[in-house]
Parts: sequence; structure tokens; C-alpha cells
Amino acid sequence: MKRNYVRPLDLKNGRVDMTHGAGGRASAQLIAELFAPAFDNPALRRGDDGAVLCELAGLPLGARLVMATDAHVVSPLFFPGGDIGALAVHGTVNDVAVMGAEPRWLSASFILEEGFPFAELKCIVDSMAAAARSAGVHIVTGDTKVVEQGKGDGVFISTTGVGVRRPGVELSGANARVGDSVFVSGPVGDHGVAILSCREELAFDSPIVSDSAALHGLIADLLAAVPQVRVLRDPTRGGLATTLNEIAAQSGVGIALDESAIPVRPAVAAACEFLGLDPLYAACEGRVIVIAPAEADALVLAALRAHPQGREAARIGSIIEDPHHFVQMTTAFGGTRIVDWLTGEQLPRIC
Amino acid sequence: MKRNYVRPLDLKNGRVDMTHGAGGRASAQLIAELFAPAFDNPALRRGDDGAVLCELAGLPLGARLVMATDAHVVSPLFFPGGDIGALAVHGTVNDVAVMGAEPRWLSASFILEEGFPFAELKCIVDSMAAAARSAGVHIVTGDTKVVEQGKGDGVFISTTGVGVRRPGVELSGANARVGDSVFVSGPVGDHGVAILSCREELAFDSPIVSDSAALHGLIADLLAAVPQVRVLRDPTRGGLATTLNEIAAQSGVGIALDESAIPVRPAVAAACEFLGLDPLYAACEGRVIVIAPAEADALVLAALRAHPQGREAARIGSIIEDPHHFVQMTTAFGGTRIVDWLTGEQLPRIC
Repeated sequence: MKRNYVRPLDLKNGRVDMTHGAGGRASAQLIAELFAPAFDNPALRRGDDGAVLCELAGLPLGARLVMATDAHVVSPLFFPGGDIGALAVHGTVNDVAVMGAEPRWLSASFILEEGFPFAELKCIVDSMAAAARSAGVHIVTGDTKVVEQGKGDGVFISTTGVGVRRPGVELSGANARVGDSVFVSGPVGDHGVAILSCREELAFDSPIVSDSAALHGLIADLLAAVPQVRVLRDPTRGGLATTLNEIAAQSGVGIALDESAIPVRPAVAAACEFLGLDPLYAACEGRVIVIAPAEADALVLAALRAHPQGREAARIGSIIEDPHHFVQMTTAFGGTRIVDWLTGEQLPRIC
Repeated sequence: MKRNYVRPLDLKNGRVDMTHGAGGRASAQLIAELFAPAFDNPALRRGDDGAVLCELAGLPLGARLVMATDAHVVSPLFFPGGDIGALAVHGTVNDVAVMGAEPRWLSASFILEEGFPFAELKCIVDSMAAAARSAGVHIVTGDTKVVEQGKGDGVFISTTGVGVRRPGVELSGANARVGDSVFVSGPVGDHGVAILSCREELAFDSPIVSDSAALHGLIADLLAAVPQVRVLRDPTRGGLATTLNEIAAQSGVGIALDESAIPVRPAVAAACEFLGLDPLYAACEGRVIVIAPAEADALVLAALRAHPQGREAARIGSIIEDPHHFVQMTTAFGGTRIVDWLTGEQLPRIC
């Protein structure tokens, strides 16, 4: 649906107004001039209320569909290493990928605040489009609503992903077994600390950059090399600590961590000390936790480290029996402490 | 993932706070005590980052997947005939259904404003769950974020639906052909006028109630009886007028309407006159526009009227040749006017 409007959108100085959400000509123009060119693909081009995906007959027999969704409300919208657009793609691509599926299709729904500059919206949309292209997914359908000034906060983006899981892959947070090993694909806490530093306008000697990235390639390589992997999970909100507690609860096990083995960048550790944070609770947006049988330790590390996103991968602990489903950690000084769920601290709007 | 928390959520007097979006224990408790019991199904119960849908092998050969998404920001959240929860299910179920697919799975992502009462959230979630049950779809995965007071407006809900389209069904807004007939399944404008009356605190003699409803049953019956149907579309934001303009542009045709044939409830017509609105631009949330070859007129009307949701269905016009892709209407007084896209008027946050 390409039309000629009397005046094109002023993408340099214009702003979103309530008519862009009213479903009439202004909404159509916003879609035609801003969203459609960025996300262009055959399904979207039809301009229907939804998208027709693939012929199921083309998928491997016994494959399964996987669906995941995320609302993104990160503040600020632009941060070192990314923005809400790329994050909205990476977050959902990763949720599909950790289910063992190849992400294929995304939907995107936008809630815009009246007065939001088109120029910023265009940056965000272009960044989403680039992230989707590089992750090999198509943004096939979407929706845009506008709320009055003071009833939103610039842009919120909900993305939903659908992917295809090959036959035989069986992953869940409930699959960890006593004796398994626990790995992380890289240093933890970069994303959370990058956002907080940005929010607090802190400048550190070495800038802290979000790890926001799509992990489907790393995960595909890992699963090809080590089909025995039992759990994959990306430690986003709540960080490594909270995600491991979730897995412990889902699987009905305990987890024993070795603090000295957990990779944390020196700049992130320093910033956390300054901000009074624990890097284990700071969100990652480009890391994956891997749990696999201990006999595959060497294979897992080799597969992760062979990928550019997994060079700093480490084995950080193991699954133990524990009726309380605690996550405990041997500290760098040789003591032991419980690593609880995120409770008192608040790290809101990190993603 | 069922856990025992020190104190259960106070669903009567409690309120959402920032910790419920931080991804830690409070987020887990909100999911466990409010969302999970309402939406309960095996995929959701696993507590993973996404949901595994069906075995593809179980679907008809040659079937296709359809995906649709909507952000819902309706204000007020509760209105005569529905609320944002039911609307979020109906809106997306209908977008999947008008693509000719049977809606199967929904994702739901919530953006909550700090301070929002749990009691209202529970009403909304229960209403979503009831709407999903009655539409035969499962809410299989979700996400919840919280924004600070003044950065949101109570609750926004984005839903994404995936459905399965049987082989041979081919529907699109681009398929209308000259000579085809245009039908609507019932009176138009009820939803939009119900919301506006509610917002303006207007009381009419006969209360105007939203038509919010899931249309998949009506549509399945119609397609079974009349497989020749070419276009289905639900006239939501922008109403019948704007949706017909979209179809005219997509298909490269004109549309000629007969005003006297378009069903509008007397109470809606009266309210529109009072509010200075045109019912043709007021949103419906439980009506479908049908375009089919003229030789099927009797079949279409019979199929629609045989269903409780289509008793007041009417043939309202036909597809004509028009290089300008205008929608024109013969008025009740015998004149002709152009029915343009929604432009000047603003009916924001209607869905």
C-alpha cells in the first residue's frame, strides 16, 4: 500500500501526534513512510491485518513451533551499545533461541507518546530493522498506538517471536539434573551497568557498553556440537543470580557456584562497587547460561569459545542436590554464601 | 513454578510497585499468584522464556501459519460491554480470523503503571482468561514490565496471535474485484460510541454497549459455507469508512456504498449526532466486513445470519472500477458523497 500524501512526514523535525494512532490517514502515512520501508518484506508489504508465514509442509517433520514475547520499556531509549529497537529484537530472538528454536518471524507493536520526535523514532526503527536482518528474522506484522503526553514515556515496544525447533531438541529450565555443569557464555552484568551508568550520568575511565546481541548463532553452533545440552537461559532482568534461582526452582535442584570462575569485566566490577550493586544481579542481554551433563564439559567450552560471542565462556558451577533449591557460591575468599533471588534492590526499566 | 511466599499478594488492596517489574522475587510472585492461575495451560505452566506450541506434524498438510499483533491502550480500561483484557483477546483473535486462520495461541505482554491496583489487574486478567477460553485460544507465554507513575496509564496490553490457515483459503485486502459485493456482519460504531460516551460521562436512554467479541466462529461458518469469500476485515480504528478505504487502496478498486443499507443502531446514530461523529468512522470490535463475488450474495447473507453474531448482517455495497480508489456512498436522500479516510477527527485510544 504505497500512497502519495500531500506532504511527506517531516522525519527531521516532525513529531508524533494523536492522529498517528487514530487509524486514519495519518496512521497509514506513518506506516507507509516510516515503518514499511525499514522492515520491508513480502508479508508486511501486503498490508493486511496479519501475516501469512510459511507453508508448514516446508518445515522438518516433527519440528515444533516456539513462541516468546517481551515488552520493552528500557530507559533511556538510547544507551552505549544499543537502543530500545535493537534490544526489542535481541530480547525476543534470544527467548526463542534459548528454547532451542531457530527464530524466524517477529511481530512488533509500538506504544508511542504524543510529541515523540520522528527523527528518534526513525533511529529506533532503523536499528530494529538492522538487528532483525542480522538475526535472520523478518518483522512480518505490527501495530502502532499513540497515547497522550504524560501517559507513556517516548516509546514502548512489544515484540513476539515465532521460531522452529528441530525434532529431538528438548530444552527447558526444568531439565537440570544433579551432577550437571553450569556455564555462562561471557562476562555478566554489562547491560545492566551500562544502563545504570547512563541513567546516573556516570563517566567511567573505560566506557561500559551493553552486551545486547542476538544469540541464535552461538546457540545453533552449541546445539550442533553438544545435543545433550539440557538448559539454556538468557540472564536478563535479575541477572545471573535470579535466573539461576529460577532454574533451581523449576528443576527442583540446588546450584553451587564458584565466584572466582564467574567472568566479570573489571570496569563492570568497579562500577558495581561504586553503585552499590552486585554484578550477579545486573542484567545481561547477550549472554546465555548453559547447563549440560558434566561429561560434555570440554565439548561445551570448545563450542562456546569457537564462536566470537563465546570467547570468554566459562564453567561457573554445578547442579547439586538441595531440597531448598538454593543457589550457593564459594566466594573468592573461600567462604560460602547463599545467592538469593533479587529482592530489595530495584533495577527497573533495564530492558 | 509454584512457590510459597512469606505473604501472598494482597489482591484486594495491594498495588503494583516497581519491584514487580524488576525480574526478581516480586515479579515471580505476581506471575505465580495472579497471571498463572488465570491463564493456566501446559505451555505456560513450564515457566520457560517461551512456549512450545504444537507438533507441526499434527496440522493439515499445506496449512499455513498466520500471525497478528495489537497493542491495546483503550481508555477507560473498563467500559460497557467489556474491558481492556477481553478487548486484547478479541482484537488479536479477530485479526487472525480475518486472515482465514483458526486462532490457536496468544502471547500477552503487560506494561503496568506503578500504583495500579491489583484488584483491577485481576479483573482484567480474569476477563482475558474468560475471553481466551471462549475463543478456544491458549495464552501460552507472556511478559510483564512496570513503569513509574506518570510514565504509563494503568495497563497497556500487547497481544500476538498465531493461527493455522487451512489449505486453499486465500484472503487478503488486496483481493477485491470489480463486481464483488460488500457486506457487514452487524450494526457499526457500537464500540467507538460506547467508549466515547463513557469517556464523556454521557448517559443515554438506552445504554450503548461495545460489540467487542471474538469473530472466529462466525468466520469459520462463513468460510465453510462460502469458500469463494475474497476479503475479510474487521473495521476497528477508523471504522467502516477507513477500513473500506484501505481495502480500496490495497485492491486498486473503488467501492460504492448504499447508506440506507448500512446497519446502525438508533441509539448509536443518536449519540453520534449529539457527539458530532459519523458512525461510519466509529470503531467496531465485533464486526466483520465481507467481500465476495456477487453470485454468492444469498449464500453469504444466509451464512452470516445463521450465526448469532451475524443476525443483522447486510449487503451494503459493491466493488466498482475507479482509478482514484474512492469509497463513495449513495446517501439516504439520493445524493452521492465521497467517504474519505478518517482525517481531521481524532478518536484516540479507542482500542
